[in-house]
Amino acid sequence: MGLFSSPAKVYKPAAEVDLGPGSDEHYISPNVRAPRVAGLLVKLLAWVLETPVLGWIVLTVLKRDNLVYKLVSDAEIPEPPLFTATHTWRDIPEKNVRRTKPGSSPAERVQEAVSCLPARLPAPGGGPASGFRRWTVRDFHRAYSSGQTTPAMVARRFLTAVKECSDLKMAVFISCDAADVMRQAEDSTRRYQQGAPLSAMDGVLVAVKDELDCLPYPTTGSVRMPAALCGVVGFKPTAGRLSNAGLLPLNWTVGMPGILAATVEDALIAYAAIVDQSKPSPLQPELNLPLLTCTRSISNIKLAKYAKWFDDSSEDIRNLCGKALQMLKAQYGWETVEVTVPEIEEMRLAHYVTMGSECTASLAKYLDNMSRSEIGWDVRIGLSAYRSFSSRDYLNAQRLRCRQMYFHERIFEAADAIVTPMTGVTAYPLQDDALSTGELDYINGAALVRYSIAGNFLGLPAITVPVGHDGGGLPVGLQLVGRPWSEATLLHLAHAVQEACWEHRREPPKVHFDLLAPRQRLTTGLAP
Amino acid sequence: MGLFSSPAKVYKPAAEVDLGPGSDEHYISPNVRAPRVAGLLVKLLAWVLETPVLGWIVLTVLKRDNLVYKLVSDAEIPEPPLFTATHTWRDIPEKNVRRTKPGSSPAERVQEAVSCLPARLPAPGGGPASGFRRWTVRDFHRAYSSGQTTPAMVARRFLTAVKECSDLKMAVFISCDAADVMRQAEDSTRRYQQGAPLSAMDGVLVAVKDELDCLPYPTTGSVRMPAALCGVVGFKPTAGRLSNAGLLPLNWTVGMPGILAATVEDALIAYAAIVDQSKPSPLQPELNLPLLTCTRSISNIKLAKYAKWFDDSSEDIRNLCGKALQMLKAQYGWETVEVTVPEIEEMRLAHYVTMGSECTASLAKYLDNMSRSEIGWDVRIGLSAYRSFSSRDYLNAQRLRCRQMYFHERIFEAADAIVTPMTGVTAYPLQDDALSTGELDYINGAALVRYSIAGNFLGLPAITVPVGHDGGGLPVGLQLVGRPWSEATLLHLAHAVQEACWEHRREPPKVHFDLLAPRQRLTTGLAP
Repeated sequence: MGLFSSPAKVYKPAAEVDLGPGSDEHYISPNVRAPRVAGLLVKLLAWVLETPVLGWIVLTVLKRDNLVYKLVSDAEIPEPPLFTATHTWRDIPEKNVRRTKPGSSPAERVQEAVSCLPARLPAPGGGPASGFRRWTVRDFHRAYSSGQTTPAMVARRFLTAVKECSDLKMAVFISCDAADVMRQAEDSTRRYQQGAPLSAMDGVLVAVKDELDCLPYPTTGSVRMPAALCGVVGFKPTAGRLSNAGLLPLNWTVGMPGILAATVEDALIAYAAIVDQSKPSPLQPELNLPLLTCTRSISNIKLAKYAKWFDDSSEDIRNLCGKALQMLKAQYGWETVEVTVPEIEEMRLAHYVTMGSECTASLAKYLDNMSRSEIGWDVRIGLSAYRSFSSRDYLNAQRLRCRQMYFHERIFEAADAIVTPMTGVTAYPLQDDALSTGELDYINGAALVRYSIAGNFLGLPAITVPVGHDGGGLPVGLQLVGRPWSEATLLHLAHAVQEACWEHRREPPKVHFDLLAPRQRLTTGLAP
Repeated sequence: MGLFSSPAKVYKPAAEVDLGPGSDEHYISPNVRAPRVAGLLVKLLAWVLETPVLGWIVLTVLKRDNLVYKLVSDAEIPEPPLFTATHTWRDIPEKNVRRTKPGSSPAERVQEAVSCLPARLPAPGGGPASGFRRWTVRDFHRAYSSGQTTPAMVARRFLTAVKECSDLKMAVFISCDAADVMRQAEDSTRRYQQGAPLSAMDGVLVAVKDELDCLPYPTTGSVRMPAALCGVVGFKPTAGRLSNAGLLPLNWTVGMPGILAATVEDALIAYAAIVDQSKPSPLQPELNLPLLTCTRSISNIKLAKYAKWFDDSSEDIRNLCGKALQMLKAQYGWETVEVTVPEIEEMRLAHYVTMGSECTASLAKYLDNMSRSEIGWDVRIGLSAYRSFSSRDYLNAQRLRCRQMYFHERIFEAADAIVTPMTGVTAYPLQDDALSTGELDYINGAALVRYSIAGNFLGLPAITVPVGHDGGGLPVGLQLVGRPWSEATLLHLAHAVQEACWEHRREPPKVHFDLLAPRQRLTTGLAP
């Protein structure tokens, strides 16, 4: 109850907040006051936080210094809570789209998606190992259909690469059942030989992300951020568009499945394949697929940009993303509209309280049955913080969510999408002292998730497209956040970004598996 | 985290719980371990609970003894949270109904409702002061239309009665603007004189309930319970059927407006008047009004009864409600189906955590700006408990809500409504020592709300109809809880209960305002 806190924030009603570029709303760059902690210090901190009175005092100071009391716990918020970012489905009139037939099968939708794609010439130089050009679904399908290679050959090369990765201590796959992969690949090979593949995705390798990497960081739900760091496309549709079935419910109201893909075209194919059209209801909407053959005709586009936020990233990221906006203006005439997105730091804290509370309650079943020694030190620290959240903290976080939904609805009245960098920093190295104890690096962590929270917390569709590499050769992504249910438009915009920005990119990727070329060694720019 | 608690409950998946009469689910009668506290003890308890360490210890013991840790905080619950009891609207095929025209005005809907009513002879003995017969909307409308009296005359008698009540220290109205009442009554009188009343409700006195009586008891939402205690009809439609606009948001996800009325017919008229048809959307459904002219044709009705729960009430209540079921069987052939409603005590605790958490967060704005001396002692005790709830408690409470929604859906597959007494006890006297400090009487409180929680927490439509008086002459209500959106059916059932049970009731009410009869003194059976 504010015993140790500075005066709590009194929020004005959301409708009275100025969203224009000249707004007097204050931009608070994530003001993380927690040093990077690893090694022995992690153990010490865990021990302190789990000590009854001392732990409470340290947590209170940490929460005060990080403005949790001021901005969330004790704040006066006029709005009611909004527990889940559910958007009532609206049949948005989107241009240049193909509407799928209701009740169509995943294979039928994949074929419809393929028919929406522009013709693509073979990648220059005979291989994809340049810029962001990678082998795509259509490349695999073409190679299988023409007999150039088979799913079984590609699967064998893939399994060799997985083994080489693990020899290099790059644990890319948590589990990979070689026998099952080969069985599926051989079935697929047989279908191609009989001229009857299931769809354009038959025989194309697909990885399913495990959902256990949340603790101790409440990283965000984690599609767009890793995509940006790795130089691929990451796409998260509107909350409710994809089924949550089978997902570990780490967070009930935040996060949802998404797609990582080599290109926007592949993201579209995967989206068409997995979209949930199972239950006809007002919340199971019609599906528009964008005709990517007509990208140049997508005109009169307005991108909302909040300059203070956009620029709160490393110099290279700022410059590359800024340059991308200039190219979009030059090539397509797209306008940038300056706006203010209020309460970004408040939203980060509300999201943190929400994720932490939901993690604690959903994982309690497992954690309560584990002894302390079985739980990682870094996880124990996270849990100490999460357990300190009161029901009032949680409810206030949902009231801040309600405000943000309102702000975003208003902004989408003036713009087709919000544009930001995808991350505030590019990938940073994992240090040795973090290996045994885990590490707590909330400062870099906050910079990483700076731009991904709105999409997650508000259930808005969002996509990241790589637009260049920083001075260290690491990929940089540009993010577009769209109106609810406007995935087709968002994919159109992302495709245009890809077309505008990829033409001159020739930097070789750091790590490269070439599964279609007839060689089996892993190409890597890393130390051996 | 269970430091002081007995082993937490491990819930089995809701789908595996046996809902039949022979279920091994255990009925826990609300096991309130908190003595009635009033006078000086209230002050002492407030002081103890607000003392940092001591308060925490006492609260921990109280919460442990009342099974909060065991059944909620530390429990293993397989289901995800369900934050608001929102029912997807379904167009239930209800029998003997009139469907209102979409977009019709309140006055038009009132006229439609009146046309659904059976003919009613004037109450015997020239006045309504017998049994549950009171003057109804149609009695007032007929008296105004015939010129027997006028809205202005009735309003004057009403204002006199209000004054007499306050002289007797019965604070029935928190605020009553005499000048405004008279202005409205005179306008209405003029319309009747011109032969153009707005509808059958023109000139009928309507009281609007203040929504500030929640603290310190999380009483439930408070329509059916006071109706039962006072011997009138209380009706709460499905959550979402009535607009929440203008309601003080004490609890965002629990509770909703309702109707207290003299008879089921009047409840129908009021329901038709205030139902929310403003925004056409999937959650703003079509409206069926029951044709109460055909009550006898409502047949093949099955009422679900959980015997252990039904019988957990005072002997008089149990007998009167049991007798009502026998009459319904004899007169209409309605069957009683024995079922088990699991986890009733768990639901009471989940509801308590939800109400308390939401009260604290919503009223914080007011409470934080008040000094302790401005807040009632009993309220301070309630707030101490509410503030101790963690976000995990709140989320677990919502998981229990999810289970209950499932259980109730299953029960409604086997029955048209669930039948219970409305309260476990009849009205009990407010003792003198409670006047200055307030009182905490959670044992009587729990018995009062025993049967009203499901309707509130799960957003189900429910109605109470008085079915008799206990040995002390105090009214007893029978409750029917219906399927979501089945208000028309529920009103039909309630009307049948009224017809079966009211015929032979002749006990004079304890307090009676006779606003139509030409006399102005308040009739009361109470000491002067």
